[in-house]
Amino acid sequence: MNRQVTTGTIYGVGLGPGDPDLISVRADRLVRTARHVAYFRKAGRPGQARRIVNDMLSPDAVEIPMEYPVTTEIPLHDPAYNACLSTFYVDCTTRLQSLAEAGEDVVVLCEGDPFFYGSFMHLYTRLNGKTPIQVVPAITGMSGAWTATGVPVTWGDDVMTVLMGTLPKDDLIRHMQAADALVIMKIGRNIDKVRDALHDSGRYNDAWLIEYATMPNQTVTPLAGAESKVTPYFSIIVVHGQGRRP
Amino acid sequence: MNRQVTTGTIYGVGLGPGDPDLISVRADRLVRTARHVAYFRKAGRPGQARRIVNDMLSPDAVEIPMEYPVTTEIPLHDPAYNACLSTFYVDCTTRLQSLAEAGEDVVVLCEGDPFFYGSFMHLYTRLNGKTPIQVVPAITGMSGAWTATGVPVTWGDDVMTVLMGTLPKDDLIRHMQAADALVIMKIGRNIDKVRDALHDSGRYNDAWLIEYATMPNQTVTPLAGAESKVTPYFSIIVVHGQGRRP
Ligand SMILES: C[S@@+](CC[C@H](N)C(=O)[O-])C[C@H]1O[C@@H](n2cnc3c(N)ncnc32)[C@H](O)[C@@H]1O
Ligand SMILES: C[S@@+](CC[C@H](N)C(=O)[O-])C[C@H]1O[C@@H](n2cnc3c(N)ncnc32)[C@H](O)[C@@H]1O
Repeated sequence: MNRQVTTGTIYGVGLGPGDPDLISVRADRLVRTARHVAYFRKAGRPGQARRIVNDMLSPDAVEIPMEYPVTTEIPLHDPAYNACLSTFYVDCTTRLQSLAEAGEDVVVLCEGDPFFYGSFMHLYTRLNGKTPIQVVPAITGMSGAWTATGVPVTWGDDVMTVLMGTLPKDDLIRHMQAADALVIMKIGRNIDKVRDALHDSGRYNDAWLIEYATMPNQTVTPLAGAESKVTPYFSIIVVHGQGRRP
Repeated sequence: MNRQVTTGTIYGVGLGPGDPDLISVRADRLVRTARHVAYFRKAGRPGQARRIVNDMLSPDAVEIPMEYPVTTEIPLHDPAYNACLSTFYVDCTTRLQSLAEAGEDVVVLCEGDPFFYGSFMHLYTRLNGKTPIQVVPAITGMSGAWTATGVPVTWGDDVMTVLMGTLPKDDLIRHMQAADALVIMKIGRNIDKVRDALHDSGRYNDAWLIEYATMPNQTVTPLAGAESKVTPYFSIIVVHGQGRRP
């Protein structure tokens, strides 16, 4: 009789906004007992997801860093950018799938919630249906950010809209005017455009900037008090809703 | 010398969407070690937040159920409704504050994330500045819901809007047309209006209905396959974004 191998499972494990104490009980258990741990990172950087679990990995866990091939060399709207990333995701997928086929479970570390603007989604859509795959939801960066402001974000029937700083300015303005509560992510180099859009939509003076939410270097400032500040990758802008309340 | 009492802290502890395994490590610790545990519930009902921690409370924890005074007797837009609720929240606040002043910590159980359309916010705004108070963010019901669909909710620079079923139909339609990804909460008796608005905005066929996300009785169905279904309180509708992806 041949030895049978049960296919392993690939787990997309959300780790939350940064504080390891905010990881879910399920994710904590999966990470601590994982034999194979994969994560994205930029070349030469530790990677945020990997950093969150620094004190949690088993000493004999095998690490699988997946290094992004492009950052700034190719412009974002050049088709070569997408082609290059797509090849990268296929390579990652192949690697994880062959581990699963050899019977190994693999934990893929995800910052925040995996299905909310996460990189893991690019692996998920390629693996789903081919390999057992499970996703563990998590606290989003935005939950960490609005909690840090000490003010509830939405009341009653407030409308909340989540916007990426990468959107064209006109789109930003239109959505900023239409919603009650706002969350703006992926700010980075788009900060001047985002600031202008907040001004033009009349929301600037109610905007808060949260950097590194729930991490040791967290900052919370009114955006108007952070003029000309260069914002890091882990930045979120929050405008609180003011809805009906008894 | 008089015995000095250190004022206790009131913790607004988010418990996530329902599965106790999705509680954060911090919340898990706070709940298991709590001596005083408060939670909202409707008269005669166990209360969802309380149910999540069924197997977690210490045997000698003191429970403080806070029972909503109104449900359906007074119409939502009658000023008496707000007045009645406001008195209720003041009473709850007084009770928790006197415990804190006697040196006791109190854990207030919150379903989902406390600052995201949560009842705890009504206590928080009344206690903040008077009593030490801390908020523990959590996985939202909507994260539980979109994870349950097995499809990522937002890609690239998708715009995501969160809508309450309690909004007027015209507002619903306008926002449904403007956003890429949609989350609709507080559906209940508003289901027919929400359905109509999704039809009128052309989003109906892409809508998913998730009931009791992450709970043992979870269901996931295309909304179009759930015609004439009566939706429970714990229902969320998700329309996934289709944004740019490599
Ligand atoms: C690719 S998205 C990933 C979002 C993540 N999956 C989540 O659920 O929050 C990256 C963006 O998330 C935001 N972000 C995530 N965590 C954050 C944190 N702890 N502090 C500030 N911003 C954060 C930043 O705006 C960043 O540009
Ligand atoms: C008062 S709001 C509270 C939201 C909560 N604070 C959160 O973060 O998700 C109640 C609404 O949340 C939604 N909800 C929360 N948890 C849910 C779950 N597990 N399944 C389905 N709907 C849920 C329902 O739409 C419900 O009407």
